[in-house]
Amino acid sequence: MGANTLKRFVPAVDWLMQYDCRALPADLLAGFITAVLLVPQGMAYATLAGLPPQVGLYASVVPPVVYALLGTSRTLSVGPVSVAALLVANALASSSAGAYLADALLLAAMSGVVLLVMALLRLDVLVNFLSHPTLSGFTSGAAILIILSQLSNLLAISAPSSESGVEMTLSLVNHLPNFDPLTAALGGAGVALILLARAPLVTLLVRMGVSENGAHIASRAGPLAVIAVLTLCVGVFQLDQKGVAVVGTLPKGLPSPSLDFLRFDRVLELLPSALMISLIGYVESISVAKVLAFRRRQKLNNNQELIALGASNIAAAVTGGMPVAGGFSRSTVNFSAGARTQLAAIVTAVLVGLVALFFTPLFYHLPKAALAAIIVVAVSSLLDWRGLVNAWRYDKADALTLLVTFAGVLLFDIEIGLLLGIAAGIGVFLWRSSRPHTAIVGRIPGTEHFRNVKRHHVETWPGLVLLRVDRSLFFANINYVDDLVAEQVAEHPQLKHLVIICSAMNSIDYSAVEALDQLADSLHRAGISLHLAEVKGPVMDRLERYGIERWLAPGKVFLSTEEAVQYLKDN
Amino acid sequence: MGANTLKRFVPAVDWLMQYDCRALPADLLAGFITAVLLVPQGMAYATLAGLPPQVGLYASVVPPVVYALLGTSRTLSVGPVSVAALLVANALASSSAGAYLADALLLAAMSGVVLLVMALLRLDVLVNFLSHPTLSGFTSGAAILIILSQLSNLLAISAPSSESGVEMTLSLVNHLPNFDPLTAALGGAGVALILLARAPLVTLLVRMGVSENGAHIASRAGPLAVIAVLTLCVGVFQLDQKGVAVVGTLPKGLPSPSLDFLRFDRVLELLPSALMISLIGYVESISVAKVLAFRRRQKLNNNQELIALGASNIAAAVTGGMPVAGGFSRSTVNFSAGARTQLAAIVTAVLVGLVALFFTPLFYHLPKAALAAIIVVAVSSLLDWRGLVNAWRYDKADALTLLVTFAGVLLFDIEIGLLLGIAAGIGVFLWRSSRPHTAIVGRIPGTEHFRNVKRHHVETWPGLVLLRVDRSLFFANINYVDDLVAEQVAEHPQLKHLVIICSAMNSIDYSAVEALDQLADSLHRAGISLHLAEVKGPVMDRLERYGIERWLAPGKVFLSTEEAVQYLKDN
Repeated sequence: MGANTLKRFVPAVDWLMQYDCRALPADLLAGFITAVLLVPQGMAYATLAGLPPQVGLYASVVPPVVYALLGTSRTLSVGPVSVAALLVANALASSSAGAYLADALLLAAMSGVVLLVMALLRLDVLVNFLSHPTLSGFTSGAAILIILSQLSNLLAISAPSSESGVEMTLSLVNHLPNFDPLTAALGGAGVALILLARAPLVTLLVRMGVSENGAHIASRAGPLAVIAVLTLCVGVFQLDQKGVAVVGTLPKGLPSPSLDFLRFDRVLELLPSALMISLIGYVESISVAKVLAFRRRQKLNNNQELIALGASNIAAAVTGGMPVAGGFSRSTVNFSAGARTQLAAIVTAVLVGLVALFFTPLFYHLPKAALAAIIVVAVSSLLDWRGLVNAWRYDKADALTLLVTFAGVLLFDIEIGLLLGIAAGIGVFLWRSSRPHTAIVGRIPGTEHFRNVKRHHVETWPGLVLLRVDRSLFFANINYVDDLVAEQVAEHPQLKHLVIICSAMNSIDYSAVEALDQLADSLHRAGISLHLAEVKGPVMDRLERYGIERWLAPGKVFLSTEEAVQYLKDN
Repeated sequence: MGANTLKRFVPAVDWLMQYDCRALPADLLAGFITAVLLVPQGMAYATLAGLPPQVGLYASVVPPVVYALLGTSRTLSVGPVSVAALLVANALASSSAGAYLADALLLAAMSGVVLLVMALLRLDVLVNFLSHPTLSGFTSGAAILIILSQLSNLLAISAPSSESGVEMTLSLVNHLPNFDPLTAALGGAGVALILLARAPLVTLLVRMGVSENGAHIASRAGPLAVIAVLTLCVGVFQLDQKGVAVVGTLPKGLPSPSLDFLRFDRVLELLPSALMISLIGYVESISVAKVLAFRRRQKLNNNQELIALGASNIAAAVTGGMPVAGGFSRSTVNFSAGARTQLAAIVTAVLVGLVALFFTPLFYHLPKAALAAIIVVAVSSLLDWRGLVNAWRYDKADALTLLVTFAGVLLFDIEIGLLLGIAAGIGVFLWRSSRPHTAIVGRIPGTEHFRNVKRHHVETWPGLVLLRVDRSLFFANINYVDDLVAEQVAEHPQLKHLVIICSAMNSIDYSAVEALDQLADSLHRAGISLHLAEVKGPVMDRLERYGIERWLAPGKVFLSTEEAVQYLKDN
């Protein structure tokens, strides 16, 4: 296997072979900073998925290393992400307690296989069917669902979980009087601490003379600091004896690789969820990877990204981890902390691995409310109010798509919401495309220019109608054109020739050509000839393949509208 | 209520008030001919739906009268149709024998309500989402399913019915040895008689001196003649004693109007099927109505058609009938028999009503194989092989949509097949739209014309890339443009200015404008300015609403490409 073949399958060879040792300190530092963020995040997202905290750590060790070798982004940070965690919780709502973990691993493996199949079939274009309004509504809805699900942990309310945001809210309100003040205080303190560790801490440190960069790096430690402070509180004051729920004993070490999760009878049932997890995971990963690659003028390969993420998810399943993706905020942190290559991600993975191997006992007194606080703050940035306002201002139909998706996620569940959103996005587009701009035109006297009869003073001829359609014809707009022609026929009893001006058509699909064939026939039986004018070359080639001379006859194809008028006006 | 308001709600007022008595003989004759066709067809399609034959007659009495009053087509013949009958059988596969009839009526009522709701929400555009390849593949697949389902009746094989065409074929082959020779002979004779009554009979009659028109009218009686001959055979030779299955005792009279079928607990389960029946019924009706209206230069109102078909289906349910639609072949017969107005349909309805009231005992010895023969011959004309060949020749992707739909109908079931087909049709369209034509352009020396750098000898400038995108930007193609820009950025290390030429863009949707915003930001961070040129007026208006000056800065919007080059080439 030559170096180039190797490079094609393992893009890491590219940066490994020409690694510039001057980048090493930056990669080491970025790897450390990202690890400081990933340890609490990993545990938190595992609990969000309804899994034991350590499953989030396991997903942060081998999968990022696999991605580092196979991925084409230099700075993407692969590991547990919030929306995928919610999708896992949703998919496993009906799993038995005994099978829950195995089902989660199976989901990761299946998502991995789905991504690899997508790579094989070059289906990376599938993400093109997700419009921004759909994604924005989906993400905002998911963020609210996540926050609602964590409120019960923050307040120690044992509200039954549900897939519908409305039911969750009602149940939270009903159980609110039973909240535990101590847990709520810890949770509130956690939220406050993380928020304070952001802009306020940076401002403070900069005022104290710390460099801007250093201040930002310190502020990344917010979540870990919250964990440390709250765990210490619980440990010192023995708050776990006073009703504060803690994480408790976590196993030390990493699970040995295993395929025990494979249960083929579960595959069919989990397949829709696996499809969603891979699609959403891929979209999140590729979006952030694209933004970061641009900034350093690097290139991504969408198909290789599918392979890398697919392999990472399979690796996650085999090593006991939950589904993974490239996280938006985490990758940004990694990038702005100075990561140059995926070596930073490998450093992060090693550090998280060390935590899982040796330091899990430190988390015994970690209150669950602290993890909930981390989640709530992290996902609250996903709420995209600005997107709704902007969309509304720019285009009401797009804003409606956003709202339908958002409402679908909250009223039904996250998967139905996403499907509704995709349908709404595509529906709006088809609906828009189904009403092409058209004009009945006439000739500006003394010229060969043809303009809209409604807006200009133009010549027309009694037996002749000139219809200009300003868009390619396809199945969703051909009926509109058909109806328009029918209207003209009903309005002009003297009509003998109808010319469709095709100057703006780049293509005519099979539905449209069949409809034109039928239209020509119907018009012919009513004593009217259908003609075309200004047909572009490639379109004409196809029409000839469909035998246009035969079905258009006695109608003709004219090179120019003027030629059509000269020929038809007195016939 | 003034005459105009009345006319708006009851379009029949239009033709009733100005009824020309000279049209009366034509309407009477056409009504009679259509009745001769409708009686056997109605009974046959009822058995296809798994219902007693008389239910097809009931659906042919009141519903066509309701349509005659409310519809805008003068010649559409409303009653049972084959594909809707198959959809009913499919929907009720799991209904208990006791609830079967009630469920069928409920389906008719629900389809009616769905059509009325579609009218209220102006959703007649929904049919635009059905591409011709989807419809063609669906209809061909349904025709094969129907023929397979009738083969067991034609041969008196008691093969268990199934929703999958493959399973039905296997089961037919397995049970083939048990076929009843007598029934098969009757069935075969029936098929042969109907086929002989078509072109051969017409040729014969014309040679015998009958007028062409008269010959065609006589050939319409084929199905009724088959019924008469085979019923007589069975009656005279007492074949029903020898194992030939007959229709047996049919109730005399029409059922009194009733709402007993209403069972709200069934509504949710039947809803998807009701949606399909109304959509498919509407598409079939509007297609044939459109063709026929054209020929006489009459106008249809799509929305009023939804109302008329909706009311007809509700009337069908209340008067004990199955779901109805405008039938393709039957309406064509009605039209070519000379029908001028819906009076013909009313005549047909009265005649069918008389049959139901007084003549049902005549059908006692009617062999079921005769009805199967009528169905098989009628639907075999729905097989659209020519459509597949034409689509393949015209466009491979459209042909693939047709095949996917066809295979889906046969391999899974008719509803899944239709959904697959709709998804495939839309998928092909989006996939095509997601790869717009683009070109990197340069200036033809000495002119202000810009052409593709790959095809022409043109000037380019090291720090400047001019990208022309020949299509409106929207969510499905913006990623393609994004990737293209990323490629240019990676390939041109000296790049400082990138201009997107928008001369062919009629619109930019919200997804695309957000992506452009992000692209401008990413490029800016990489030291590159994004500019636009030749933006059309309406597109510019929207971009300004989205604050283009702010997010594009320091990039600019240039009126012409030449202006952009002048300004940027030395910067």
